Amino acid sequence: MQNPVVGIIMGSQSDWDTMREACSILEELAIPFEKKVVSAHRTPDFMFEYAETAVERGLQVIIAGAGGAAHLPGMVAAKTILPVIGVPVKSSTLNGLDSLLSIVQMPAGVPVATVAIGKAGAANAGLLAAQMLATQDQQLRERLLQRRASIRDKVLESGEWN
Amino acid sequence: MQNPVVGIIMGSQSDWDTMREACSILEELAIPFEKKVVSAHRTPDFMFEYAETAVERGLQVIIAGAGGAAHLPGMVAAKTILPVIGVPVKSSTLNGLDSLLSIVQMPAGVPVATVAIGKAGAANAGLLAAQMLATQDQQLRERLLQRRASIRDKVLESGEWN
Amino acid sequence: MQNPVVGIIMGSQSDWDTMREACSILEELAIPFEKKVVSAHRTPDFMFEYAETAVERGLQVIIAGAGGAAHLPGMVAAKTILPVIGVPVKSSTLNGLDSLLSIVQMPAGVPVATVAIGKAGAANAGLLAAQMLATQDQQLRERLLQRRASIRDKVLESGEWN
Amino acid sequence: MQNPVVGIIMGSQSDWDTMREACSILEELAIPFEKKVVSAHRTPDFMFEYAETAVERGLQVIIAGAGGAAHLPGMVAAKTILPVIGVPVKSSTLNGLDSLLSIVQMPAGVPVATVAIGKAGAANAGLLAAQMLATQDQQLRERLLQRRASIRDKVLESGEWN
Amino acid sequence: MQNPVVGIIMGSQSDWDTMREACSILEELAIPFEKKVVSAHRTPDFMFEYAETAVERGLQVIIAGAGGAAHLPGMVAAKTILPVIGVPVKSSTLNGLDSLLSIVQMPAGVPVATVAIGKAGAANAGLLAAQMLATQDQQLRERLLQRRASIRDKVLESGEWN
Amino acid sequence: MQNPVVGIIMGSQSDWDTMREACSILEELAIPFEKKVVSAHRTPDFMFEYAETAVERGLQVIIAGAGGAAHLPGMVAAKTILPVIGVPVKSSTLNGLDSLLSIVQMPAGVPVATVAIGKAGAANAGLLAAQMLATQDQQLRERLLQRRASIRDKVLESGEWN
Amino acid sequence: MQNPVVGIIMGSQSDWDTMREACSILEELAIPFEKKVVSAHRTPDFMFEYAETAVERGLQVIIAGAGGAAHLPGMVAAKTILPVIGVPVKSSTLNGLDSLLSIVQMPAGVPVATVAIGKAGAANAGLLAAQMLATQDQQLRERLLQRRASIRDKVLESGEWN
Amino acid sequence: MQNPVVGIIMGSQSDWDTMREACSILEELAIPFEKKVVSAHRTPDFMFEYAETAVERGLQVIIAGAGGAAHLPGMVAAKTILPVIGVPVKSSTLNGLDSLLSIVQMPAGVPVATVAIGKAGAANAGLLAAQMLATQDQQLRERLLQRRASIRDKVLESGEWN
Repeated sequence: MQNPVVGIIMGSQSDWDTMREACSILEELAIPFEKKVVSAHRTPDFMFEYAETAVERGLQVIIAGAGGAAHLPGMVAAKTILPVIGVPVKSSTLNGLDSLLSIVQMPAGVPVATVAIGKAGAANAGLLAAQMLATQDQQLRERLLQRRASIRDKVLESGEWN
Repeated sequence: MQNPVVGIIMGSQSDWDTMREACSILEELAIPFEKKVVSAHRTPDFMFEYAETAVERGLQVIIAGAGGAAHLPGMVAAKTILPVIGVPVKSSTLNGLDSLLSIVQMPAGVPVATVAIGKAGAANAGLLAAQMLATQDQQLRERLLQRRASIRDKVLESGEWN
Repeated sequence: MQNPVVGIIMGSQSDWDTMREACSILEELAIPFEKKVVSAHRTPDFMFEYAETAVERGLQVIIAGAGGAAHLPGMVAAKTILPVIGVPVKSSTLNGLDSLLSIVQMPAGVPVATVAIGKAGAANAGLLAAQMLATQDQQLRERLLQRRASIRDKVLESGEWN
Repeated sequence: MQNPVVGIIMGSQSDWDTMREACSILEELAIPFEKKVVSAHRTPDFMFEYAETAVERGLQVIIAGAGGAAHLPGMVAAKTILPVIGVPVKSSTLNGLDSLLSIVQMPAGVPVATVAIGKAGAANAGLLAAQMLATQDQQLRERLLQRRASIRDKVLESGEWN
Repeated sequence: MQNPVVGIIMGSQSDWDTMREACSILEELAIPFEKKVVSAHRTPDFMFEYAETAVERGLQVIIAGAGGAAHLPGMVAAKTILPVIGVPVKSSTLNGLDSLLSIVQMPAGVPVATVAIGKAGAANAGLLAAQMLATQDQQLRERLLQRRASIRDKVLESGEWN
Repeated sequence: MQNPVVGIIMGSQSDWDTMREACSILEELAIPFEKKVVSAHRTPDFMFEYAETAVERGLQVIIAGAGGAAHLPGMVAAKTILPVIGVPVKSSTLNGLDSLLSIVQMPAGVPVATVAIGKAGAANAGLLAAQMLATQDQQLRERLLQRRASIRDKVLESGEWN
Repeated sequence: MQNPVVGIIMGSQSDWDTMREACSILEELAIPFEKKVVSAHRTPDFMFEYAETAVERGLQVIIAGAGGAAHLPGMVAAKTILPVIGVPVKSSTLNGLDSLLSIVQMPAGVPVATVAIGKAGAANAGLLAAQMLATQDQQLRERLLQRRASIRDKVLESGEWN
Repeated sequence: MQNPVVGIIMGSQSDWDTMREACSILEELAIPFEKKVVSAHRTPDFMFEYAETAVERGLQVIIAGAGGAAHLPGMVAAKTILPVIGVPVKSSTLNGLDSLLSIVQMPAGVPVATVAIGKAGAANAGLLAAQMLATQDQQLRERLLQRRASIRDKVLESGEWN
């Protein structure tokens, strides 16, 4: 098995139902990844260690999903200069608006690449990571282009019905 | 000068205009405090060190103000069991709604005592810290009661006009 | 049975499903508490009496949960200088955003320590009360630190899966 | 001078700029009124006394304006069965959305007749009070009908321009 | 059967589930009322006729419930000087926030007495109508006071449990 | 002067600053129009008359601008089957979100063609009216196509700078 | 079968449940239409081709439904001067508020005629298209007037019950 | 001058005040870039051409800023598999909430890496682009690390004052 180049972390086991979408995309595109629960609030030291050692462990992108006062993506981004993709997990009370604002409204200096709330966002986090990697990987670029073409064709074929 | 029992921290120098309200209250009530810029995103290690050493340095309450994706109060709360009061600083784009949700919507296990957005909230953070300390300090309790009575009397006196 | 040091009140019997989370935490931490329905709108005089006699009855912290136009925490806070923790109960129409704003946006002079909407907030209200009490109680501080360490360990142990 | 039949109260002197609109309407319609600062949070006992004695003092309607966590209208309504009209004062941070939700989202049992945020709402509070009184006062009804007709005519006359 | 003094109208048959709460209160308080579907958008002429003839038919208060772009309460208020109480019905997409803003944000000149979104609001609309009528009806005032006392007592009795 | 084919109405003279954008577009495209203040709440009967006579007076599209509880577009739409374009005027308290929701959230049966809040929306209301008319007017279609091409060219020419 | 004059497009097959309401109205009014899945993001070139050829294929109005970051209506509007009606489909996370703002807040120059979120909006999109066509079609105008009258009568007949 | 590797585009000249922040960062980090106005709605064909030729022209990342119904980032993302970073420009009516939701809520399949609303977001877009490039550029990585260290040191030095 290849060394992971993408790290997928999530604030809680309950985020897995959302974050598995990111894993599915990476598997489909044959990109090696690791996945872990890393909680900003419950395992802050481990979160810092995870972020600090990400480069030396060979990661090139980190995907972090969290809900509510979602501090995980931003705090990891504060501890690494790897690109960090933040996935706002849909929260039970405010539908993920809190998660979204907690992740996207970062101050100048520490960006988080934020995607949509929920499963669509998690899938797109996987794709965005792939697109970043593809800028240096001609084969991956081809797989991404084929994936797009295939989706386009499916829409075109099924676009009319009675 | 007495050892500080309240630590007032803020994510950026620009938060000072808001957070000075907390300092004014503590000065008025003769509660020794320290104030510092501690940024979750720009000085994450110092933030952790600050939180970890808070108890041994004699702090009993921490007041943390931040705006936007406001992670400072929650991350400090993740690193200490001192009560942490979070002040949502009014942000330039979303009026502090982002700050409020980023601070208040903490997951079970790590509370942040959140107050109102902006200056009123900062003043109340100072008062709330005082109220916590007053549960063990009869004299402070008296000062708080007198402060309330004096404010009440001012409202009653000025409550009619032509 | 020990004299209660924390008073847990809620605006309606229907808030119990949320507020029991606060009770569970206090039970777990062996902090004696009392619980009651006290309604700002239906029992205003009893609410004032409750707040006025809280200190003499030995309470050190009050936790108040309410939903919608949630006036209970703020009005109790107006009648005592004990720290008051407000729990915004999720409302049926606006998901608790109304409860949150009604509780947190207090004017300068009368703070309410606001926590997250719903059950996570109620649990955190219990923890926040414990953290306030722990500033004067070395044993409680130990229990809180152990609780945190135990939660951290559980996350670390279960953080990887297939 | 006649005995006031409408009581206009507001949470703070700073609400006067908004609440004077209600007074102007009542003056225009020759309805005797009183005005006062009554603060739910800073003068809670006086607020209760005000509400409890409103009927015996001859008031028939109460207009209460407040901003932020606006508890004044709802708490006065909890202490009297006179109709209470609530005016959400525009707040500095959330534009009065917090004021509106804190006033309008009352639980079943204690209504507050809520009007628009800010000056338009204050003027309408005056008119609404007049409309309530007019159900028993043929002359006031005439004045209200004339006022409407006059406004209608002004719009019709000035409704075209170049 | 007595002549109705309160008119309850709603924009659609589907609002009945909400608006029946207003009827229940009026029945409980022995206030004669009528109820009808009157749609601002589907029966605009009948709406105007209803509003124009309300006084001569003996109505003293109108309660109007509507959802979404809820124009019924405001348009009826534009056609009568009877007090109009607006009930924002919970909408399927925006949870009644659209209904609330469409009803409460009336311009100066034409007030609508707005209550909470949904069933609690509808019940309160009935109570508010009763409170308006009670200013001229000593017996109704007594029934309202007894109702309040009875609710208070129920809360006090059931306020503690194990 | 030609008979107007577009009627531009607005709830208040103060909406003119916004609605003049619609007039400018129609003038530019040589489409004859009329403009008037027609208030849903202050001149309800005239509003109905205006809508009822619109077809016989030769209007083919109505543009209606209003702010706050903006009932004008929807009520005009309820009284005519001409297409009605609604312009949400930016309100002083809620930035036009109330205007937008009051206009766009119409129930099934009575559509309002809603455009953006404020001046951009007003300009687009003029263009949308023109686009509707252009489906039967080849010359107007040409003018619209030329206008688009000219705007495109201006963007392309000025799209790079130093 | 007649040549379609209305084109109904939607971003995804999953929008069909909403958009069928528009089709039902057009069928009821005997207006020939076509329907297709055209995705702004998955079939961008086909979207442009669809918009560019709409006039020559005889379309007179386009109805476009989409959810979330709903770009379909606005992008089609950028590529044709036919009137484009945008239907905000209710999204799973933010209830269609994202869809609504993405569709309605178009910049000056490219209007989208936006209707309500969800099924009511889709039905109204069909009606609005019919109203546009009816300005040149006396028979369609009659059908629309009869439809309205029939709905009015149904409301009037069923407006009272026990 | 080096061939640009980052393309910065914006929907309107008026977005330059925001987007120049992205340029400043790239200049500071010595990353060659190009900047252009590319409007989704006013120059749709050029937008597609720009996106389609981005790879062959040597771009590795695209930064796209837009406000209101902000379709530029998502539509460019639909036409290239380069990573696209979206900057929500603060809008005049809804403070950029519309821009944010229009950019971030992309459906599964076409990600946009969204940053904060306004200038902080634009600066972070520049940094995020640099972080993506740095995964393959050891020298750029060093410059990013030094930049972070320098900012951290400035905060630490200036973090206390009187």
